[in-house]
Amino acid sequence: MAEKLLPREKGFSEWYVDLVLKAKLADYSDVKGCMVIRPNGYALWENMQRILDKMFKDLGHKNAYFPLLIPESYLKKEAEHVEGFNPQLAVVTHAGGAKLEEPLVIRPTSETIINRSFAKWIQSYRDLPLLINQWANVMRWEMRTRLFLRTTEFLWQEGHTCHETEADAEKETLQMLEVYRTFAEDYMAMPVLPGRKSETERFAGALRTYSIEAMMQDKKALQAGTSHNLGQNFAKAFDTQFQGRDGKQHHVWQTSWGVSTRLIGGLIMTHSDDAGLVVPPRLAPTHVVLIPITGKASDAEKTQVLEKTHAVAADLRRAGLSVLVDDDDTKSPGFKYNEHEVVGTCLRVELGPKDLAKDSCVMVRRDVRQKEFVPLAQAVEKAKAMLDAMQADMFAKAKAFRDANTFEVNSYEELTKRSEDGFMLAHWCEKPACETKVKNDVAATTRCRPFNLKQEPGKCVVCGDASPGRIVFSKAY
Amino acid sequence: MAEKLLPREKGFSEWYVDLVLKAKLADYSDVKGCMVIRPNGYALWENMQRILDKMFKDLGHKNAYFPLLIPESYLKKEAEHVEGFNPQLAVVTHAGGAKLEEPLVIRPTSETIINRSFAKWIQSYRDLPLLINQWANVMRWEMRTRLFLRTTEFLWQEGHTCHETEADAEKETLQMLEVYRTFAEDYMAMPVLPGRKSETERFAGALRTYSIEAMMQDKKALQAGTSHNLGQNFAKAFDTQFQGRDGKQHHVWQTSWGVSTRLIGGLIMTHSDDAGLVVPPRLAPTHVVLIPITGKASDAEKTQVLEKTHAVAADLRRAGLSVLVDDDDTKSPGFKYNEHEVVGTCLRVELGPKDLAKDSCVMVRRDVRQKEFVPLAQAVEKAKAMLDAMQADMFAKAKAFRDANTFEVNSYEELTKRSEDGFMLAHWCEKPACETKVKNDVAATTRCRPFNLKQEPGKCVVCGDASPGRIVFSKAY
Repeated sequence: MAEKLLPREKGFSEWYVDLVLKAKLADYSDVKGCMVIRPNGYALWENMQRILDKMFKDLGHKNAYFPLLIPESYLKKEAEHVEGFNPQLAVVTHAGGAKLEEPLVIRPTSETIINRSFAKWIQSYRDLPLLINQWANVMRWEMRTRLFLRTTEFLWQEGHTCHETEADAEKETLQMLEVYRTFAEDYMAMPVLPGRKSETERFAGALRTYSIEAMMQDKKALQAGTSHNLGQNFAKAFDTQFQGRDGKQHHVWQTSWGVSTRLIGGLIMTHSDDAGLVVPPRLAPTHVVLIPITGKASDAEKTQVLEKTHAVAADLRRAGLSVLVDDDDTKSPGFKYNEHEVVGTCLRVELGPKDLAKDSCVMVRRDVRQKEFVPLAQAVEKAKAMLDAMQADMFAKAKAFRDANTFEVNSYEELTKRSEDGFMLAHWCEKPACETKVKNDVAATTRCRPFNLKQEPGKCVVCGDASPGRIVFSKAY
Repeated sequence: MAEKLLPREKGFSEWYVDLVLKAKLADYSDVKGCMVIRPNGYALWENMQRILDKMFKDLGHKNAYFPLLIPESYLKKEAEHVEGFNPQLAVVTHAGGAKLEEPLVIRPTSETIINRSFAKWIQSYRDLPLLINQWANVMRWEMRTRLFLRTTEFLWQEGHTCHETEADAEKETLQMLEVYRTFAEDYMAMPVLPGRKSETERFAGALRTYSIEAMMQDKKALQAGTSHNLGQNFAKAFDTQFQGRDGKQHHVWQTSWGVSTRLIGGLIMTHSDDAGLVVPPRLAPTHVVLIPITGKASDAEKTQVLEKTHAVAADLRRAGLSVLVDDDDTKSPGFKYNEHEVVGTCLRVELGPKDLAKDSCVMVRRDVRQKEFVPLAQAVEKAKAMLDAMQADMFAKAKAFRDANTFEVNSYEELTKRSEDGFMLAHWCEKPACETKVKNDVAATTRCRPFNLKQEPGKCVVCGDASPGRIVFSKAY
C-alpha cells in the first residue's frame, strides 16, 4: 500500500480503475468483459441489496427466481425487444453433450420468460396487482467494458409487476423511480435527477422509460436506475390476460424496473478522492477502525492502550456500528492509515499513550481527513455524530458540485463548446435526428427530462423547431 | 383450494410434485429441467440464506462473486474434474452476434475460475487462510429432473477456502460439514448423518468428500450438503502458490462446500403431510395466521372480533413473529384453514364472537392439527411456546422415524430384500465393484460412513472380503 493511487487530475478513468483494483473492490477475469467482485466490493453490494430489498418488500413486492436461459423464440415475440437486445446476446447452442433443438440465450433481462409464467398464474383481477422482484445475474455482450460500470455479466434486481389499468402501472413505475431516488440520495449520498427518457433512450419494448441521472466528478452523467411502463406490449406478446371486474378478458398493464452493480461505480465516482474510496456511512461495510499507537510505548503502556482500544471498540459495537481494531504489530500506523483510506473506512480512531494520559483519542473522518481530539468518555456519541455529519456533508458536497455544473445552453454553438462542462439544459424538438447530430458532433446524449425542472416552450437548439421544454444533454457513461 | 392434495400413500413422488405446485413453491418452465421458484418457495430460500450466511460470516468467511461463464480450457486443467462434469455442461458458442474463439461453459461449480483469481491474489502465508463464499446460480444438464431436488439450473452457495497445511484444510472441511449439520438439525428440524463418502461418490477433483445424509418419509436418502477437502489438486492445476514461513513456494491446500435449493425439497419430504407443507418455525416465512370468524356475527360483534383480532396480531408482531390476518370476507373460514395448511403457516388462530365472550381464542399447530383453547391474555406467550414445541417435536418425530428405519444388514440376501426399508448399515470392502453390483441389483448406493457409528471390522456383505466397518446403503434422490 506504499504505492499511491493515480491522482484524478492525471486521468479520471485511470484513477477509477486504479482505485477499484487497489481497494480490492473488483478484478478482471479472463472472460471477456466479466469481472470478479471481490469481498470489499461485494460487501457494498450486500448493503445496497439489504436496503433496497426492504424498501421493495415494504411496498408489497415479493422475490422470486426465473430461469437463466430463455428460449430464443421468446425474445422474438416482442419485435422491438428482440431488435434491441439481439446484438448483445450470449447463446447456448450445446448442452449435455448434444446440440440443442432451439438455442437458449442467457437472460439480458427477463420480461419475456417472466411473462410466460405470469400468463399461467394470473386468472382474474383478484390476482392483481402482482408485484414480483428478482435478484439475479444478467448478461449483455458489450464491446467496451469497464469494471462495475459496464460489464458483460452484471448483478441486478429486476422488478416486474402487473396491474389492472394503465394508470395503476404508471403509478407503480413512478413509485419505483422514487424508491430509487430515495435510495440514491438518502443512502448513497448521490444526488440524482429523476425524469423521463427520450424515445431514443426508451427501453426496447416499453411505452415510457424513466431514469435517475447522477453526475460524476468528471461531470459526466451516469444513468443509475430505470423504471419502465411497459403498457400491454409484453402482455399481448405472451397473452397475459385477466378476467376484469366487467367479466371480460383484458391484457394486464405492466412495469419493470432495475438497478445493478453499476451503482457501485456511481458511488465511487461521486465521492472518492486521490487517497481512495469514500463511502457514505449508511452503506459502509466498516464504520470505524481503531488503531492503537504503541510503537514507542513501554510494555505496560502498550497493555493499557490495547485494553482501552478494545474497550472503546466494544462500546462502539454496542452502539450498532461496524468496527475493526487494527492491532497488527508488523505494520506502522502510517501504513494502516493509508490502507484504511484506500478501502474507505469511514472513521479512524487513533489511541496512543499520550492520548490515554489525557483520557482522549484522535478521530479522523475519511471524507474531510481532519484530526479531532475527542474525550474518551464521549467517543461513542462523537463517532455517531461524525458519521451522521459525514453522510449529510457528502450529499451536500455532491449536490453543490452537480448544481454548479448544471446550466442552460441556448444555442448549438454553446452546446458544442460546453459539452464537457456538465449537465446542459437545452431546448429540444423531440426529433431523434437532432439527438443523433449532437451525439455525432460532441458525443453527448439526452439524459432525461427532469421532473423538477420548470418547463416552458422554446426552440430546439439543434434545428430551431418548436420545443416543449428543456432536456438534459450530457456526456455519459 | 377446494381441490385436495394427492395423499402420500397414493404415490410419494406424485404427492411431492402436487404439493410443490399447489403450495405455489415452484413451477415448471419451458426450459428443459429449469424451474421457476415462486414467492412462497423463494421466501424459504431467503430464510435459509440469511441463517447460513450469518453462520459462514461468524466463522470469518466473506462473500464474493465470480463470472458465470468459464473458459472450456479451465475445466480441462484438472483431469478428473472435467471428466466428472463434461457430460453435464451447457456451452455458449456464440455471443454478440459472432462465434466465440473458445467456447464458454456455464459454471457447474466454480473451483476452476475461482482458482484463477486465487492464484493472483495469494502471495504469502499472510494471505492465508483465504475464506470465500459465493451465492450463485449453477447449471448441470440433467437427464431426469424433479422440482427443487434435481434441476438443470439451481441456486446454491459454494464456499472456497485456501490454507497453509493439509491439516488446516481438513479442519475447515469438517467444520463446514458441522455447520451444515447444525443448520439441518437446529433450523430445518431434519436429522442428518454426517460422514465420509466413498471413492465412487467423491467430488470430481477432491481428495475426500463428506456429506450429511437425511432420510425422507419414503425412507429414501437425500444428500443434503457436501464438504470437500480438495487437497492441492486445483492449486497444482492453476498454480495457486504462496511463500511459506520457510521462505519457499508451496501450493495452497483447499476446500469447497455447498448446499443448494435442493434443501427445500428435503424440507418438504421430511415434514409435510397430506394436507400440505409443514415448515419448522425457525424457517417459516409466516408464523401465525389469524382468522376472524364472523359469518353469523352481528355487525357489532364483527367489529369487536376484527378489532380484537388485529390487536392480538399487533401483540404477536411485537413479540417478533411474522403474522398475517386473513379477514377476506369472500372466503369461508374452512377454505382459509385449507389454504394455510397447504402453504404451511405454522400456527392458526381462530377468533369468533363465542371465543371473544370467553376472552379466549383457538390455536392450531400446523404439524399436529389439534385445537387448543387459549385465554386471550396468554395469546403471545402461548403462541411462542407452541412454536418452540413445534420446532422441537418436528425434529424428534423425524429423528424417531429415521432411527426406526435404520438397521444393520449382515448378508447380501438381507440387503437386497430390505433395500426399500431405509438406511442399511452394512459391511463393505471399499471396492467400487461391490457398490456397482448393489446399484445394479437394487438401485441402492453407499451414502456415507457415519462419524457417529461405532466401527468394527467385518466382512463385505457383497463379496465377503475384509471390511473396515459399516457404511450406509440406501436408495437415494
